[in-house]
Amino acid sequence: MVHFSAYHETASEIAIRPTSTAVLVIDMLADFCLPGGAMVLPGYEALVGPQNEVIRALRNAGAVIVFIVDAHRPQARRDREFLKRMPHCIEGTPGVQVIPELDQSPSDITVIKRRYSGFFNTDLDVTLRDMMVDTVIVMGVVTNICVRSTVHDAFFHGYTVIVPQDCCAATGPREQASTLHDISTHFGVVSDARSIVESICTCKPLPVQDGNSF
Amino acid sequence: MVHFSAYHETASEIAIRPTSTAVLVIDMLADFCLPGGAMVLPGYEALVGPQNEVIRALRNAGAVIVFIVDAHRPQARRDREFLKRMPHCIEGTPGVQVIPELDQSPSDITVIKRRYSGFFNTDLDVTLRDMMVDTVIVMGVVTNICVRSTVHDAFFHGYTVIVPQDCCAATGPREQASTLHDISTHFGVVSDARSIVESICTCKPLPVQDGNSF
Amino acid sequence: MVHFSAYHETASEIAIRPTSTAVLVIDMLADFCLPGGAMVLPGYEALVGPQNEVIRALRNAGAVIVFIVDAHRPQARRDREFLKRMPHCIEGTPGVQVIPELDQSPSDITVIKRRYSGFFNTDLDVTLRDMMVDTVIVMGVVTNICVRSTVHDAFFHGYTVIVPQDCCAATGPREQASTLHDISTHFGVVSDARSIVESICTCKPLPVQDGNSF
Amino acid sequence: MVHFSAYHETASEIAIRPTSTAVLVIDMLADFCLPGGAMVLPGYEALVGPQNEVIRALRNAGAVIVFIVDAHRPQARRDREFLKRMPHCIEGTPGVQVIPELDQSPSDITVIKRRYSGFFNTDLDVTLRDMMVDTVIVMGVVTNICVRSTVHDAFFHGYTVIVPQDCCAATGPREQASTLHDISTHFGVVSDARSIVESICTCKPLPVQDGNSF
Repeated sequence: MVHFSAYHETASEIAIRPTSTAVLVIDMLADFCLPGGAMVLPGYEALVGPQNEVIRALRNAGAVIVFIVDAHRPQARRDREFLKRMPHCIEGTPGVQVIPELDQSPSDITVIKRRYSGFFNTDLDVTLRDMMVDTVIVMGVVTNICVRSTVHDAFFHGYTVIVPQDCCAATGPREQASTLHDISTHFGVVSDARSIVESICTCKPLPVQDGNSF
Repeated sequence: MVHFSAYHETASEIAIRPTSTAVLVIDMLADFCLPGGAMVLPGYEALVGPQNEVIRALRNAGAVIVFIVDAHRPQARRDREFLKRMPHCIEGTPGVQVIPELDQSPSDITVIKRRYSGFFNTDLDVTLRDMMVDTVIVMGVVTNICVRSTVHDAFFHGYTVIVPQDCCAATGPREQASTLHDISTHFGVVSDARSIVESICTCKPLPVQDGNSF
Repeated sequence: MVHFSAYHETASEIAIRPTSTAVLVIDMLADFCLPGGAMVLPGYEALVGPQNEVIRALRNAGAVIVFIVDAHRPQARRDREFLKRMPHCIEGTPGVQVIPELDQSPSDITVIKRRYSGFFNTDLDVTLRDMMVDTVIVMGVVTNICVRSTVHDAFFHGYTVIVPQDCCAATGPREQASTLHDISTHFGVVSDARSIVESICTCKPLPVQDGNSF
Repeated sequence: MVHFSAYHETASEIAIRPTSTAVLVIDMLADFCLPGGAMVLPGYEALVGPQNEVIRALRNAGAVIVFIVDAHRPQARRDREFLKRMPHCIEGTPGVQVIPELDQSPSDITVIKRRYSGFFNTDLDVTLRDMMVDTVIVMGVVTNICVRSTVHDAFFHGYTVIVPQDCCAATGPREQASTLHDISTHFGVVSDARSIVESICTCKPLPVQDGNSF
C-alpha cells in the first residue's frame, strides 16, 4: 500500500485557535449510553472524563461547544434509518437527552440531526459559519458511524478536523482502529484529550504524529 | 457489543428492479490504477472481471451505469483535498480517464466529483432522480474512502444501497473488512458480483445474509 | 418575450393526493405579524382565514401540516442575515411563536430555518421524504422572499409546488404579482384557497389556469 | 411597507477585493440568446458590452471568471425542469455553448448546472472556496429566474453578492425591476457595470445607493 498511502507533505504540528474552534459532542445521549436506553454502547463512562476536560478547556478559552443530538420525529411515516436500525432517540422522549455527566452551559449550542452525520439536513454548517469557526474537534459515539460521518462532511465543507481518540468509542476495537486510521490519513488529525488540553492551556501548537496513523 | 448492534427486523432478501437501479463505478481511473498513476492502488486488476459482469448484466437489464470520476480543477488556489493527499486526478490530464478494461457504452453517464463522496457538490442526486432511480449498486476504489463516502450519502439521500464486495478494494485488509461491516450494519447490503448477476438474470431476489456482517 | 415564455405542454389540471401532500406555512410569526414585532408586515390578518381553510381541509384529508419558523441563534457572532436585515426572530423570544389565530394541532410538524428558504440547512427535505410527501402547498409571508425562496428549493428538490395566492402577502403589490408570475411560469402552480379546498373536498383535480400567469 | 422594509444599518460603500472575487456569468448560451435557439430572450446584445467590461476589468485585476452553463443530460428519463419549460440546452448540442461575443480565456472556469440555480447540485460552492473567493458579481440571463436563484443561494452560502443591473435581462420590465428590488433589499448590492469597473480601476470602494432600491 506504500504507493497509495503516500501523504502529501504534512505539517508536524497544528495551531488551535480556540475562538475559531468548535467542539462537536456527538450523540452522548441517554438512548445510546444509559441503562435502559434503546441502543446502549457499553462502556461510555470511560469517555466522560476526557470529554469534560476538552469541553472545559476549550469553552474557557473561548471556543464554541456544540451538542449534536440524534432525534427522530415521531410523526415519520417511514424513517429511513429505522429500516436499518432499531427505533431510537424519538423526539420528545428522555432518550434524546444529553447524559448529565457531561459539563453543559447555557451558552452552548444544540444541533438536532436526523441521520448519522451532524451535517446532513441540519443547520450545523450555517451555525459554525455564523460562529466564525474554521476548526472542529469531534468526539462522541460511535466512532465508526456518527462521529465518522460527521468528520467526512466537516472535511468536505472545508473545516480542519481534530479527533481526540480517547473521547470516542466504536462498536468494536477493529472499527475504532480502522476509522481512526482513515480519519488520520484522509480527513483530519487524530490526537487525544490531554494533548489538546495542553495545547490550549500552553498556547503551543498540537503535535501531529508522523504519518498520524493508528 | 451485543446491545448496540441489535438490528431492526431486516429482510432476508431484496428485490432488485434494474430499471430503477444505477451502478455507480467509483474512481476506476488511470491515476488510481495504472502504472505511473499519481496514487496507485496495487491489484486493481482483480476487480475488473467482477465489475464488468455486474455492469453488463445490469446495463442489459435496463439499469443506468454511472462512472464517477474524481477530477480536481487545475485553477484551484488551494485544493482542500491536496492539503491532506498528494495531488492527483487533475482535470485535463490522462489521470482522470476511466481505465480501458472496463466496459463502457455511449449511453452511460459520467459524474465529476471534487471530493471523496460522489454526492458532495455534484449532480449525482439530481441525475439519479431524473433517471427515476431508487437503488444504487456501488463499486470501485477505495472501499474505505471514496466508495464508503458515497455509500454514506446515498443512504442519507434515501437510496437503497448494495455493495458487491469483490468489486471493491480498500487500502488494506482491515479497512476492507471494517468498512464492509459498517456498510452492512448501518448503510446497506453487502453482496458479491455473482449473486447480483444471478439475481438479475433469474429475476429472483438477492439473498441477504443473516446479520449481513463480515 | 413571446419566444422566451413559450411553455412546455402543460396540464390543464392537477390531482392533489392529500396523503402525499404537505402544507408549508412559512413565517406566520409574532415578529412578522403582530403589533410590536421586529419587522411587521401590515395586513397579515387577511391571510388567516384562507390559510386556516386550507390547513383544516388538508389536515382532515390526511395531509401533513408543517409550520416553518424563522429563528436565529442568539449566540451567533455574526448572523449573515442581520448584515442585510434588522435583527428579528431571535430563538427563545416570543417573536418566533406562530400567531395564535392559526389552527395548530399537536400532530403538526415544526421546522426551524435560519435563512429565507425553508430548505437551506434544515431538515425539511428529509422530513418530507420520511412523510412520503411529493407535493407541497406553500403559503405565508412574505411572498417575494421567504415563500419564494422555499418554492425555488422545493422545485429543485423535485416536489410539485402549489401556491394559493390569497394565503401569501408580499412587501408590495408589484412584488406579489411578479413573484406569482415567476412561480406560475417556472416553479409550480398558482391557485387560491377556495379552489384547493374544493379540489380536496370533492376529490376532483385542481384546475390550472391557461398559461397560469398573474 | 415602511415597517417591513426597515433596513439594518447598512454601509454606504463596499470594497471589492478582486483576488477574492468571482464574476459569475450565467446562461449566456446559444439556446437562450442566438437566433434559432430553443428559448431565445430577444435583446441579449445590449448585455454583451457591459458584461465584457466587467469581465475584462475583473480578470485583469486577478478575479476568477466563472461561466455557468445550463446543460441537461440527454439520457434523463424525466427531466424535472422540462415538465415546466420547453426542452433546451441539451448536453452535447450547440445550444449549450457560451456565445462567442463574450470575452473568454483558457484560465476561466466552467460550471455545469442542471437547474436554475448555479449552486444546486453543482460544484460551484466548493470551487469558489478552493479559489478562496468570498464575493460574487452575478450577471446574465434571466434576471428573475437563473440569476436570481443563484443570488439566493450565494447569499445563503455566505458570499457577498453584487449585481450589475445593466449586465442582466429579465423576461419583462416588471420582473427586472421587482427582482432587482428584492436583491438590493434582501440579498446583496445592485450596481452597474461602469461603477464596478471604476471601483476596480481606481481601487476605490463601490458606492452603495441609499436604500439601494430600484
